[in-house]
Amino acid sequence: MDLKSYLQTKRSIVEQALQDVMLKPEGLLADHIQAMSYSLFAGGKRVRPILCIAAAESLDTDLNGLLPVATTLEFIHTYSLIHDDLPAMDNDELRRGKPTNHIVYGEAEAILAGDGLLTMAFEILSDPDLGTRLGAEKQLRLIHILSSAAGPQGMVGGQAIDIASEGKEIPFDTLRYLHRCKTGALITAAVQMGAVLGNANQEQFQALTDYGRNIGLAFQIVDDLLDVEGTTEQLGKKAGSDAALKKATYPALFGLEETKKRAQAAVAAAITALESFDMKADPLREIANYIYFRKR
Amino acid sequence: MDLKSYLQTKRSIVEQALQDVMLKPEGLLADHIQAMSYSLFAGGKRVRPILCIAAAESLDTDLNGLLPVATTLEFIHTYSLIHDDLPAMDNDELRRGKPTNHIVYGEAEAILAGDGLLTMAFEILSDPDLGTRLGAEKQLRLIHILSSAAGPQGMVGGQAIDIASEGKEIPFDTLRYLHRCKTGALITAAVQMGAVLGNANQEQFQALTDYGRNIGLAFQIVDDLLDVEGTTEQLGKKAGSDAALKKATYPALFGLEETKKRAQAAVAAAITALESFDMKADPLREIANYIYFRKR
Repeated sequence: MDLKSYLQTKRSIVEQALQDVMLKPEGLLADHIQAMSYSLFAGGKRVRPILCIAAAESLDTDLNGLLPVATTLEFIHTYSLIHDDLPAMDNDELRRGKPTNHIVYGEAEAILAGDGLLTMAFEILSDPDLGTRLGAEKQLRLIHILSSAAGPQGMVGGQAIDIASEGKEIPFDTLRYLHRCKTGALITAAVQMGAVLGNANQEQFQALTDYGRNIGLAFQIVDDLLDVEGTTEQLGKKAGSDAALKKATYPALFGLEETKKRAQAAVAAAITALESFDMKADPLREIANYIYFRKR
Repeated sequence: MDLKSYLQTKRSIVEQALQDVMLKPEGLLADHIQAMSYSLFAGGKRVRPILCIAAAESLDTDLNGLLPVATTLEFIHTYSLIHDDLPAMDNDELRRGKPTNHIVYGEAEAILAGDGLLTMAFEILSDPDLGTRLGAEKQLRLIHILSSAAGPQGMVGGQAIDIASEGKEIPFDTLRYLHRCKTGALITAAVQMGAVLGNANQEQFQALTDYGRNIGLAFQIVDDLLDVEGTTEQLGKKAGSDAALKKATYPALFGLEETKKRAQAAVAAAITALESFDMKADPLREIANYIYFRKR
């Protein structure tokens, strides 16, 4: 299969779905909606929604009418980027090559844009119209997967530990837990939500969860690598910012070579988890490989 | 009925329910959970959860096992206070007589504590255990009511308009819309969620919604009044801060006397909405009166 054209096709499907669910900037809310839309449509690769779609399709499911579910992962991801970039947090002025939300709209509105996107994810998932297509039980499972992955025992908690660890030497176990929460949880949730949409049985759900955990791990390790190896232009954000903030990273703990080995091992484990899946899972397999080779 | 002892009883029930659903500060997440708990247990009056309970009880419903639903309103309310107090927003250092979250935990953690509380509300509402007691359909309705009330077309949107209006003269229609979103939406949601828990029929749901809208309006007008009339000690936050920020308020637009009349009219309309309810709705009626007379 041609992964590049697969990703392009799915990405444009996700872009359209995001346009469909996003509020139009009208009336008194125009500025607020504009601020949310600025980051939501800032050229993200849509990795999480695509993973959700690919997981559902690996189980031979037609997602017609169910795409709003996949978009909610991008709402959560985008909110987390806006808040992470704030001066009080990572203080980044560039994201995907564009000025960050607070640079354009000011800090107050950036905080609220993040809050709005986070809340909208659950508005979309609890939409009664979606319920008629999906059934209330599945809808609730999706909400529980997403809120758990985004909450204190997931992404937010990981970010809190990350912020608290700045400038400190942290043990490997802490780093691993941090990664699992901060990046891994939402990526795993993406695949699990696809599994729910695809009516996965228990083994299939577990296999896809294992796949998700391992690509989540690979994703974070590669992020650390890119921060060391990439240039600002390639990254669309400031390179070397982790080191500047004395952040705990894989390269800082293990050196470059060992870090690369660990990323490769995580990719291999992700692919192994899908052993019992047929060729409809090829996109998932290719994505796992792609995570290691992106921008390298 | 004795409203004071009613509120005390319900408040301690809500405190216990909040303790039950809140994470314990343990392990690597201890600091993050501590920061969330600091504001969650900072002595709030628990108005919104109590309204939810009172609405359900006005329909003769036993809330045994369903109290987690009421707590989620306090999670949302608390997150909004933490974010509103941030330096980039209202820049308040005191809340309920205590240092605000960012003063104690720093800005980064305060942003994340708010994010965590917001997300946890939906984790709690989508809990499968709650579903076995409540049924998936009702659970979803609750999630949709809460997320819509908290989102861009509710509380967050209202706050965004409020921030954008600082230092500007805004027309009355804008002020009314702003209030309806910023304060009214969550208060109305509280009563609506109680209505869902109480198996309200369509007319009862509408009557409770009208009640909620009117006390929400009264609540905001009285808030404006208190900011003009109260002292810092009484309020537990800086008095006169609205005027200092040149915020649009009822007293600024209409003067004190006309503002008081409007608050009283809203309270009267709320009580009228409950005409067809029997004495089990007396707590709701008393709460409506109390909103006007609190701290006066």
